[in-house]
Amino acid sequence: MEIKDIGELGFIEWVKSNFKTPPEEVMVGIGDDTAIIKDGDNYLLITKDLLIEDVHFKIGFDPFLLGRKSMAVNISDIASMGGEPLYSLFGVGFPKDLSWEWIKRFMEGLKNICEEHNVFLIGGDTCSSPKLFISITLIGKTDKPVLRSSAKEGDYIYVTGNLGDSGAGLYILLKELSFEEPHLKYLVERHLNPSPKVKEGRFLRKIASSMIDLSDGLSIDLHNLCRESRVGALIYADEIPVSQELRKFCEKLGENPLKFAIQGGEDYELLFTTSEKLEDSVMEKFSIKLIGKIEKEEKGIRILRNGREELLPRSGWEHF
Amino acid sequence: MEIKDIGELGFIEWVKSNFKTPPEEVMVGIGDDTAIIKDGDNYLLITKDLLIEDVHFKIGFDPFLLGRKSMAVNISDIASMGGEPLYSLFGVGFPKDLSWEWIKRFMEGLKNICEEHNVFLIGGDTCSSPKLFISITLIGKTDKPVLRSSAKEGDYIYVTGNLGDSGAGLYILLKELSFEEPHLKYLVERHLNPSPKVKEGRFLRKIASSMIDLSDGLSIDLHNLCRESRVGALIYADEIPVSQELRKFCEKLGENPLKFAIQGGEDYELLFTTSEKLEDSVMEKFSIKLIGKIEKEEKGIRILRNGREELLPRSGWEHF
Repeated sequence: MEIKDIGELGFIEWVKSNFKTPPEEVMVGIGDDTAIIKDGDNYLLITKDLLIEDVHFKIGFDPFLLGRKSMAVNISDIASMGGEPLYSLFGVGFPKDLSWEWIKRFMEGLKNICEEHNVFLIGGDTCSSPKLFISITLIGKTDKPVLRSSAKEGDYIYVTGNLGDSGAGLYILLKELSFEEPHLKYLVERHLNPSPKVKEGRFLRKIASSMIDLSDGLSIDLHNLCRESRVGALIYADEIPVSQELRKFCEKLGENPLKFAIQGGEDYELLFTTSEKLEDSVMEKFSIKLIGKIEKEEKGIRILRNGREELLPRSGWEHF
Repeated sequence: MEIKDIGELGFIEWVKSNFKTPPEEVMVGIGDDTAIIKDGDNYLLITKDLLIEDVHFKIGFDPFLLGRKSMAVNISDIASMGGEPLYSLFGVGFPKDLSWEWIKRFMEGLKNICEEHNVFLIGGDTCSSPKLFISITLIGKTDKPVLRSSAKEGDYIYVTGNLGDSGAGLYILLKELSFEEPHLKYLVERHLNPSPKVKEGRFLRKIASSMIDLSDGLSIDLHNLCRESRVGALIYADEIPVSQELRKFCEKLGENPLKFAIQGGEDYELLFTTSEKLEDSVMEKFSIKLIGKIEKEEKGIRILRNGREELLPRSGWEHF
């Protein structure tokens, strides 16, 4: 048996049931993107993401944007809990023959996003490696963490921003399509240079009943939120926000934009629930859309499309 | 120019001078193995180490011991500051065709050392990778951190345990020598299964003026401690503790055991200084040896050998 037969979820479940349960102050541990440790009146948030050449990116990608993105994905994990990012440890394995120019641009991108979000680099580790390997640990703080496990039946389901742009951008890059036209450039940019929603997460921590960031795609992340909360959900397909740029791209491609919006990952928008409907002014201010409601667990996770409800399969980006 | 022309130290210096200096509560940041953040009356210690297949280990090494060691090197960083290890985030990139049996043994080794040192796994990240890639973040705590930058002229220099065993063990493994004889087995075991000196570090935090763990070898780690403390040092070659097993191995090899003791890395013993001489009972209890004294920076870092003093070059294990 190989690791690909176990899968990422299977591996996490094995670790969870074989390792000792942490003490009480660890409010959230293995299985979440971010750990939460109670620390006096505050909560420490600790997250860690790996980015591996040829798995998550190609060495031909713009190093400045790759530097930004490698930190952005971690900042997004902190944002999804209503946290403020603070300190980071940066681990990197550089191939010996990588040019110093490339590395400097990469580090400048990292620096750029650190300054944008007031994150301080406080340590790390560096070594040589056959492939470029990036491992960032980010520590944040919040006075009120929002979990992915606390959605309740009857809650409203919202998302920030538009979905699917990043998945379409990745499609363009992997198929090596030209992206000189502005709408294609926009989609590629949304993949290479995502904006973690810290401001939105900070605001929402007071009112969201549950929250998760959209890294694996709406379908998988909604399944994760529902599984952890032990609830079902109904999504209104027509309400899923999709950009003009994605629509235009999909028209030519002959694809439904919903495919990218539901299955495409790495949008780094926030998916969250509230017990009361949000005011229009708030929705407008933070580009928030109502896309569904939380239901009983038995009802499963469904999508309403063309007047018919169907089950929404857990599919999208799986690592193994 | 390539990264190998800059070197690990050059890279760290570049990062240090280009990234914003962290706020006051970050007592130790970039350049140390472990970051220190003041947190009320306590100090958070955060460290992160990378282990990469074919750079730090071979996939043929015993997976159980590799699991132990990947955590041990981080625990050693916490120990070297007088800290107590607490929580860990575990990042791993597994090659897709790695057997589940191998991974399970690896994880059992990790679990084994976590339980030995009361470390709780609280999260991480996992994905597929062309080579096995391990990135562990470990968080610890102390009421009194011991820095590597606070040695003073006149201080005594001590080490715990014996030096050079691990370097000799690695030599045996890399040369693919047979190691059935007990003394060779012992050396290999010391390389594959190091014991981080947490108990010693906890005791020493009250009396050590500076401390560092011996991961890169006595020479490099002493140079690092002296550079950070802006002092020089004199080491008494005859006092460097060397095991019977290493002596026996070196006799046959026709090598001086001091070569391994000074240049060999990964002993994970503690090198520390004190302003007052330690009592014999303490030295005996923790297997501590007095090996030198701290001098003025201008005097450089020297070694007294066969009645003559000579400069001790900074050499040993460098990553680039």
